[in-house]
Amino acid sequence: MKQNIYDNPVFFREYISLRESGVTYNDFVEQPAIKSAISTLKNKTILDLGCGTGQFAKYCIENGASKVIGVDISRNMIEQAKKENGDKKIEYICSPIEDLELHNQKFDLIISSLAVHYIEDYTKLIVKVRSLLHENGEFIFSTEHPIVTARNEENNWMKDSNGEKLHWALDNYQEEGKREHNWYVDGVIVYHRTISTLINTLIDNGFILEKIIEPQSIPSGLEKMPKLVNERRRPSFIVIKSRMLR
Amino acid sequence: MKQNIYDNPVFFREYISLRESGVTYNDFVEQPAIKSAISTLKNKTILDLGCGTGQFAKYCIENGASKVIGVDISRNMIEQAKKENGDKKIEYICSPIEDLELHNQKFDLIISSLAVHYIEDYTKLIVKVRSLLHENGEFIFSTEHPIVTARNEENNWMKDSNGEKLHWALDNYQEEGKREHNWYVDGVIVYHRTISTLINTLIDNGFILEKIIEPQSIPSGLEKMPKLVNERRRPSFIVIKSRMLR
Repeated sequence: MKQNIYDNPVFFREYISLRESGVTYNDFVEQPAIKSAISTLKNKTILDLGCGTGQFAKYCIENGASKVIGVDISRNMIEQAKKENGDKKIEYICSPIEDLELHNQKFDLIISSLAVHYIEDYTKLIVKVRSLLHENGEFIFSTEHPIVTARNEENNWMKDSNGEKLHWALDNYQEEGKREHNWYVDGVIVYHRTISTLINTLIDNGFILEKIIEPQSIPSGLEKMPKLVNERRRPSFIVIKSRMLR
Repeated sequence: MKQNIYDNPVFFREYISLRESGVTYNDFVEQPAIKSAISTLKNKTILDLGCGTGQFAKYCIENGASKVIGVDISRNMIEQAKKENGDKKIEYICSPIEDLELHNQKFDLIISSLAVHYIEDYTKLIVKVRSLLHENGEFIFSTEHPIVTARNEENNWMKDSNGEKLHWALDNYQEEGKREHNWYVDGVIVYHRTISTLINTLIDNGFILEKIIEPQSIPSGLEKMPKLVNERRRPSFIVIKSRMLR
C-alpha cells in the first residue's frame, strides 16, 4: 500500500496553510537548491514526480519548458494543482509514482522534489526514471538527508534544560528502511537510505553523477525563519543531479 | 606547515604497536573496503599517497602490480616501509603529499588510505592527482567520514550513566576546516569537508564518480573487535572511487 498522507484532511489543511505562508524549508532551502541544479528549462519536456500543488510545474512553463507532466498520489494535491497552477502545457496525473505508466513517452528532465523518501523501492524507481528519460536526459531530485532520516527515534535535536540545541543525534545509519515520523499527524512513513545507496544505485543503472548539493538557507530565509541557521549544523536535505548516459 | 604526527615518537610507537596487533579499524573496516573498490592491480602502475609502512604497496606488488611508488611525510614510516615491505618494484619517497614532484610520471591507479583528511587544500590535491593519472586512470581514496569529522567537539558518542552509547553527536556540518583531535597525542589535526565538497571537487576536475562505500566491519572483525558493531550506527570512513575522464 503506497502512503498517501496528503489526502488525510488534517495533514492536507496544515500542509497547505504552511505552503501558502511562503515561509518554509521548501521556499528558502530546498527549492532554491533544486532550481540551481537545473541546466536549463528552455524547450524541455519535463516530468515532475510528486508535483504537489503544481508550483514547480508552473515555474517550468514560465521558464520556457515546452511541456510538463506532473504526477502526484494525492487527489487533493492534483485538484489544487489544476485550480491554481493549470496551464495548457501542463498535464496533471493522479497516480502513485510507483504505478505510473506513460507509454512511449520520454522526457528531457525528470524532477522530484522531496518525494523519493516516501518511496519504498528505490532501485525500482531509478529503473523507471531511466526508462522515461531521453538519452542524456537529467534526473534531479531532492530527498531528506540520510543524516536526518537515519535514527530510529524522533526529535533528534538534543537540548539542554533551557531548550538550547546541543547537537544532532545520529544513529542506525546502516539500517536502511522504514522510519515513522509525526508531521502534523502520526505515522508519516519515510524510508532511510544511506548516501552510498542513493548514489551507487544511480551509477549502477547507467547514470553519471553531476552534482550533490547539501543546501543551506538563502539569505532572506535566515531573516524570515531564523531557525534555518540550524541548517549549518546539519543539512535537512540532499539534492542529487544525475544524467542518463546509455 | 604540513602536519607530521607520525614522527612524534609517542605517537609513532603507539601507532606501530596498534597496527602490528592486526586488530584495528584498518584491518577490518577500511582496508577491505578500499581493496574491494580496486578493479585490478595486474600490470598497473600505482601511486600510494600516505603509504605508511608500505603494507598496501607490498600487497599491490603481490597482486600483480608492475610498479608502486609509496609516498609518506614521515621519515619513521618510510624507514619502516623500506625495512619491512621493501621490493625492487617499490620506490618509497619521504615527502609531504602536497609537495610531491614526479616529473613526467603518470600512473594507472592512485590510492590514498586515510590520508586525505590530513590535507588542508583538497582542491589542490585533486588537481595534483589528476596531473599524475593516465587518462581513464582510477583514483580511490578513503577518508574519515564527514559524519565523524563534523562536530567541533570531540568524544561524540553520547553515553548514559552506565557508559552505554546513546547516539552519535553531530554538529557544525557545514563549517569546513580544521578539527583538533586527541589520538595518542594532543593536537592531531584533521580537516572536515562535506560529502558534497568531497564529490563535487572530483567531478569539477574531470573525474567521474564510480562508487561510494561507507564500510562496515567484515565478519571476522566483529568477532575480534566487538565494538565494530558500532560502525552500523555511524560509519567511521568513506571510500570514494573515481576515474579520470579527460
